[in-house]
Amino acid sequence: MSQDLKEAALEYHAKPRPGKLSVEITKPTRTSRDLSLAYSPGVAEPVREIAKDPENAYKYTAKGNLVAVISDGSAILGLGNLGPLASKPVMEGKGVLFKRFAGIDVFDIEVNSESPQAFIETVERIADTFGGINLEDIKAPECFEIERALIEKCSVPVFHDDQHGTAIVTAAGMLNALELQGKKIEEATVVCLGAGAAAIACMKLLISCGIRSENIFMLDRKGVIHSGRDDLNQYKAMFASETDKRTLDDAIDGADVFVGLSGPNLLSAEQLKKMAPNPIVFACSNPDPEISPELANSVRDDLIMATGRSDYPNQVNNVLGFPFIFRGALDVRATAINEEMKVAAVHAIRKLAKEPVPQEICEAYGVDKFEFGRDYIIPKPMDVRLLEVVPAAVARAAVDSGVARNPYPAHYPLKSLDDIII
Amino acid sequence: MSQDLKEAALEYHAKPRPGKLSVEITKPTRTSRDLSLAYSPGVAEPVREIAKDPENAYKYTAKGNLVAVISDGSAILGLGNLGPLASKPVMEGKGVLFKRFAGIDVFDIEVNSESPQAFIETVERIADTFGGINLEDIKAPECFEIERALIEKCSVPVFHDDQHGTAIVTAAGMLNALELQGKKIEEATVVCLGAGAAAIACMKLLISCGIRSENIFMLDRKGVIHSGRDDLNQYKAMFASETDKRTLDDAIDGADVFVGLSGPNLLSAEQLKKMAPNPIVFACSNPDPEISPELANSVRDDLIMATGRSDYPNQVNNVLGFPFIFRGALDVRATAINEEMKVAAVHAIRKLAKEPVPQEICEAYGVDKFEFGRDYIIPKPMDVRLLEVVPAAVARAAVDSGVARNPYPAHYPLKSLDDIII
Repeated sequence: MSQDLKEAALEYHAKPRPGKLSVEITKPTRTSRDLSLAYSPGVAEPVREIAKDPENAYKYTAKGNLVAVISDGSAILGLGNLGPLASKPVMEGKGVLFKRFAGIDVFDIEVNSESPQAFIETVERIADTFGGINLEDIKAPECFEIERALIEKCSVPVFHDDQHGTAIVTAAGMLNALELQGKKIEEATVVCLGAGAAAIACMKLLISCGIRSENIFMLDRKGVIHSGRDDLNQYKAMFASETDKRTLDDAIDGADVFVGLSGPNLLSAEQLKKMAPNPIVFACSNPDPEISPELANSVRDDLIMATGRSDYPNQVNNVLGFPFIFRGALDVRATAINEEMKVAAVHAIRKLAKEPVPQEICEAYGVDKFEFGRDYIIPKPMDVRLLEVVPAAVARAAVDSGVARNPYPAHYPLKSLDDIII
Repeated sequence: MSQDLKEAALEYHAKPRPGKLSVEITKPTRTSRDLSLAYSPGVAEPVREIAKDPENAYKYTAKGNLVAVISDGSAILGLGNLGPLASKPVMEGKGVLFKRFAGIDVFDIEVNSESPQAFIETVERIADTFGGINLEDIKAPECFEIERALIEKCSVPVFHDDQHGTAIVTAAGMLNALELQGKKIEEATVVCLGAGAAAIACMKLLISCGIRSENIFMLDRKGVIHSGRDDLNQYKAMFASETDKRTLDDAIDGADVFVGLSGPNLLSAEQLKKMAPNPIVFACSNPDPEISPELANSVRDDLIMATGRSDYPNQVNNVLGFPFIFRGALDVRATAINEEMKVAAVHAIRKLAKEPVPQEICEAYGVDKFEFGRDYIIPKPMDVRLLEVVPAAVARAAVDSGVARNPYPAHYPLKSLDDIII
């Protein structure tokens, strides 16, 4: 990050007042009468209605449009375990994105917990405050246990964006890249470098989308995850291959797809050269990818490449997913964000990349046009059409899969944030 | 409550969108550059600064102006234990008042806890998210243990408004009433009907203000709390009198002051007649006071009376206290709201009632004038001068008593909400 950007970021957060979010009043409060409706004695009426039927909380409080973004600060961005308080700017930033892209109100909650069990208990006890829960920046493997337990215990959707948001956007781009490279999904071989939360979620979702599990080779710091290893946690063990490949060199030979969710410069030019014709490289380590686009393109001209960076084509950016997935889930009061809803989001994002891009979106990025092809396999974050297509697809999948408690939201599909009267 | 008011309250909460609060973005987010400052990669800078020094959270996040309003729903208004979710409209309403009167951002958190210990653990773990914690609608005696433990465990101020907010506003009105009735504070005898959280806090603060503990007679459902009883919890036991008075009839005879924090119509006309000359009656049961002002005034013309209701003179309304007390505490980053700060708030509120009232405040209430006297012993909630005088007094007391971490806020004293650039 440049010194300029660092200073601008500190200034942005500090001035004219600290932070990026405020809580504002949405109803009249000028007169004593107004206040007697907002608070005592009038407020007793919605209290009684909710005591009669908890579902009335969606009618009389902010719950239905309110998501908690919750972290323990154990894996903040690429910075590591800096503790809950240091994660607050990131959680508030997530709140900014939820609001900016999908009109969702966010309370960020930083949890100082001594164990996964303490974290789970804490979130479970405050969960009813919210319409949904977005877990963030929690290290693996604890994040898996935390997410599983909270999904089981909470009546509102619980979603760990570092896993599933990343997976959904990766899968959307991947399906388009496979199509463009003329590869059959059920035949494509995938090398996944990295075996953390995002990597495991990505591979699971690719399997839900048609990739065969026996065609996936996942590598952790010790090399290929194979059935002969006895040092695997239960999450990695699901991806143990029956293979004699041991290193990235072994695995990459002839592979169709490389997915990097690991660290900078871990894929060499020599390794890229050994991939199959028309290879696909998703080098998502941020800010420094597993191989730089300059180096990759100088070695292979039949390549489709994506990264996590906004200054190269095909940015895999979670913001294409989470605001709209929660928008859809909240709109139909889904009790969960299930596999069907995730796959629906993948296909909605994927399809949007094939649509002609309106001029104003191109202008926002200072280009003449975006056209479906090797340099545009995935929509841009500023594409306002995401709000029209992704929540509707997610909401539809929630209804069809039986997790929607309110299958008939007033707006549907959503055309703009002005429509959000849930 | 009238049917009209009930319907208006439900409509107010439901339309045009549910609830009363939203979370809004306070910084630019139009361009990709803006977003790269608000979130990745720019947000890494404030993260690093906070990891270096936790105090930087006040500089780069919303923490310093953010209060959690937290309840378990065990004592919602006068409605009882209806559970956490049903308390949400009240907690959001409290957020409305914090914002409307003192520009403070509030996250309401409803905690579903199986025990005081679970509640304490939960709040302790999320406390660093906030600049202060306001506990609300938690039943006695659990609220005492909860507050004590959280004050000890949390580095930010923890304040149970049902106790201390009520006490501060009551004490402010009481000191003025004693003065007007020509009673010496160290001689006045006080009957307190009710021995719940608010009653105990009121009597404690009156003692801090000069009332003698031996002049207080507190009554619970079983009558006078005296040293011969063996059924007292530790909180009531502090108020056990050496006396042979047993009933309200016994205690009220010749008393200077009656404070009711109990239930409707528990003080009879006959009992009021037995009070000393120039009596003071604070009948704070809401909506129906311990004795109606009509009845009380028909029996005694030498009376000063206050209630919890806005439609009679001298409303004891917590909103005169909590927004401004937290404003003062947040402004100097106080680590606690201590007795000195509470007493400072009492005197600031008390003194304001003696000042001439500007015309626009009178107009807001549709009266020609308010003048310090038996029908105006305490300021009105819409008095904008509260924001000028109460936070400044509280902040000063925090500095003087050594609990202020930032004794030099940029604005000080506060003239209007526009000044709040903490």
